[in-house]
Amino acid sequence: MVHPENDAQYKGLHVNEGVANLPSVNPYATFRRKKQLLTPEEYFAGIRGGDISVLGQAVTLVESNLPSDQQIAQRVIEMCLPYSGNSTRLGITGVPGAGKSTFIEALGTELCKSGKHLAVLAIDPSSERTKGSILGDKTRMNELSVQANAFIRPSPSAGSLGGVARKTRETVVLCEAAGFDTILIETVGVGQSETAAHSMVDYFLLLQVTGTGDELQGIKRGIMEMADGIAINKCDGNNIERAQAARVSFRNALHLFPPTESGWVPEVLTCSSIDHTGVMDVWHNVEEYIAFTKKNGYFDRHRTEQAKYWMYETINQALLDGFYRNERMEHQIEVAERQVLNNEISSFIAAHNLLDRYREQRN
Amino acid sequence: MVHPENDAQYKGLHVNEGVANLPSVNPYATFRRKKQLLTPEEYFAGIRGGDISVLGQAVTLVESNLPSDQQIAQRVIEMCLPYSGNSTRLGITGVPGAGKSTFIEALGTELCKSGKHLAVLAIDPSSERTKGSILGDKTRMNELSVQANAFIRPSPSAGSLGGVARKTRETVVLCEAAGFDTILIETVGVGQSETAAHSMVDYFLLLQVTGTGDELQGIKRGIMEMADGIAINKCDGNNIERAQAARVSFRNALHLFPPTESGWVPEVLTCSSIDHTGVMDVWHNVEEYIAFTKKNGYFDRHRTEQAKYWMYETINQALLDGFYRNERMEHQIEVAERQVLNNEISSFIAAHNLLDRYREQRN
Repeated sequence: MVHPENDAQYKGLHVNEGVANLPSVNPYATFRRKKQLLTPEEYFAGIRGGDISVLGQAVTLVESNLPSDQQIAQRVIEMCLPYSGNSTRLGITGVPGAGKSTFIEALGTELCKSGKHLAVLAIDPSSERTKGSILGDKTRMNELSVQANAFIRPSPSAGSLGGVARKTRETVVLCEAAGFDTILIETVGVGQSETAAHSMVDYFLLLQVTGTGDELQGIKRGIMEMADGIAINKCDGNNIERAQAARVSFRNALHLFPPTESGWVPEVLTCSSIDHTGVMDVWHNVEEYIAFTKKNGYFDRHRTEQAKYWMYETINQALLDGFYRNERMEHQIEVAERQVLNNEISSFIAAHNLLDRYREQRN
Repeated sequence: MVHPENDAQYKGLHVNEGVANLPSVNPYATFRRKKQLLTPEEYFAGIRGGDISVLGQAVTLVESNLPSDQQIAQRVIEMCLPYSGNSTRLGITGVPGAGKSTFIEALGTELCKSGKHLAVLAIDPSSERTKGSILGDKTRMNELSVQANAFIRPSPSAGSLGGVARKTRETVVLCEAAGFDTILIETVGVGQSETAAHSMVDYFLLLQVTGTGDELQGIKRGIMEMADGIAINKCDGNNIERAQAARVSFRNALHLFPPTESGWVPEVLTCSSIDHTGVMDVWHNVEEYIAFTKKNGYFDRHRTEQAKYWMYETINQALLDGFYRNERMEHQIEVAERQVLNNEISSFIAAHNLLDRYREQRN
C-alpha cells in the first residue's frame, strides 16, 4: 500500500493490462482453433438462454489475448451488460491453509441445493507459476462440480493482476446475463488480488484459522479492515474451543476499528466446512448485509463507485504503461533511480527530468 | 484505498501536483516582494551555518508556486541533499481532539531541553479551508516556540495533497542540512495525508484517546495498521483507568495483525501531555525502533524505498494530470462515465475509447 516493496508496484504495473496493450507476438496464434467461433449474437443468445457450454466458450474468448477474440468478446459483453448486475457478489479470501476450497464447496453445495444459481470464479495472477493453486484442481470440489446449477471457472491464466482482474470482472457480467444469481470470487489473501476482488464484490469475507503468529504470517496487512465479515474456519474436533476464543478476540479487535463506510458492523463467525456447521450462518450474514446496504442506499452507491473505479483504473494504467513500457525510457529510469538513491538529485527533480525526456522522445 | 469516494481520488488528483504543473496565473505574482532574494549559494551557506532566518526564507521559496522561486529552491535543495538524511523522522497523527498539539509541545520541549535540534512540520492540504488547524496557531505551542533549538513551521498553504506533501518533504531536506536531528511531521488523521506522511517518516505514531465509537469516528480505516506505535493520550485525572483499559484492548488487537514488514512489534503506551507522564516513554520507543531497524537493515531499506516511492509517485501524477487536466477531455470523460453508470458500455471499453480520443487529440 504505502511502501511497495518492488518497482513494479510503484509503476503500477500490477494493475490493468488493458485491451490496448496486447502483446504483439501471441503464443496462441500458432495453434489452430478446433472449435468454430460463433457470432457475437449467437454467443449472446446462448448465454441468455442459460447454455453453460456457450457461456464457457464466451469466457474463453474473454480470457484470450488474441485481438480477434477480444473483439468478439467485447461485443458479447456489451450485449450482456444490460442484463447484468442482478446477483449477490461475494469475495472470499484467506491464506493458503485457511480451507477456502472446502468452505466454498460446502457453502456452494448448500446454495445450489437451495435453488441458487452459483458461479465460482477466482483471481490469482500467479496461477501459472503455482500451477493453478486456486480452483485449478476441480477434483477438490467433487460435490459442487456435479451440481447442475453451478459454474466453476479457475482463475484466468497468469498475467498482470490488472489483466487477470479485468477478465474476471467481465466474466461476472457474462455469468449474470446467463442467470447466475450468486457469484463467489476467490483470492489467495497474500498479495494485491484482494484489492482487485474487493473492488468487484458486494461483501468481502475473510476466512481465518485459529491462532496468531504463524497462521497470520501470510495475510497481508490491511485486509482485516477490508472485511465485511470474518469466518473462523475449522471450528471442529478439538479445535472448537480455540476457534471460539479466536472469535472473541477478533470481535474485540473489530470494535477498535473505525466505523465502515457502509454503516455495517462486521461480524465474526465460526464454521466448519467438514462438519457443515456455521457455513450457512455466514451466508445469512451476507444476506443481512445485502438487505442492510440496500436499505440505506450503500449497495447501489458502492456498485456505481466500482464501475467508475474500473474505468479510471484502466485509464490510469494505460497512461502509466506508455511511460514504463517504453523501451527507450528503461535505461534512463534506471540511471535516475540510482541518482536518487545516491542523494545526487531529489526524487522530484529526477522525476521531472525523466518526464522531459519522455515528452521530447514522443515529439 | 479501494473504493475512493470521489472522482478526484480515482484520477489520482490528490497526489503530487508536480513542479511542471504550475498554474499559469499565479495569485502571488501581483505582490511585490519585500525581501531581496539571496543566491542559491547564499541560502545554502546560511542553512549549513544553522541560520534559522535563512532557513525560514528558503522554506518560503520551497512553498512558493512562483516558477522563479521554484528554480532557486530546487537548486538549494540539490545542494543540501548530500547533507540530509541524518535525523530521526517521526510522523504523528490522530483525530482532532486527540491532543496532538499539546503532545508535540510536551515532547518537543523535553527533546529540546535534552539538547536535540527539533523541527516541527505538518501536512494539511485543507489548511486554508480550516484556517490552519495544524500548527497554524503557534500560540498553542508557547513553551516549545521559545526554545532556541526548535523550528516550527505550519503546513504549506492549501493545495493538492501531493503539492503540499512535496513541499514538506523538501523542507525536511533543508532542515536536516541545517543540523536538525529530529523531525516531527504532524497530520490530521482523517484524510489521505497519513499516507503521504507515512511515506516520509521512519516511525509513525498514532495518538489515540480512550473509548470507542464517537472518538474513533474521524479516524480513517487502515491507519491503525500503519502505526509503529500507538499512544493513548490524556491518561490523567479520572481518565487514567479508562486509558489503561484502552491500552490493553489496543494491545490485544495489535496481536491479531500480521507481523510488520520491519519485524517490529508495535507498542501501545499511555501518556499525559498535561501531567507530562509517559511522553518520554513514547520517545524511548521511537529510539528503540530506530536501533532495532538499523540493526536488521530495515531502516536504510525503508528510506531507499521512500526515495524511490516519491520519484515514481511524481512521475505517475504528471502522467495522469496530462489526461485529467486536459480541457478537451473533460466533457468526454463525463459522457463516458455516464454511459458506464447506465450500463451502456463496459468500464473497459469506456476507458479505451477515451484513451483513443486522447491520443488522436495529441497528434
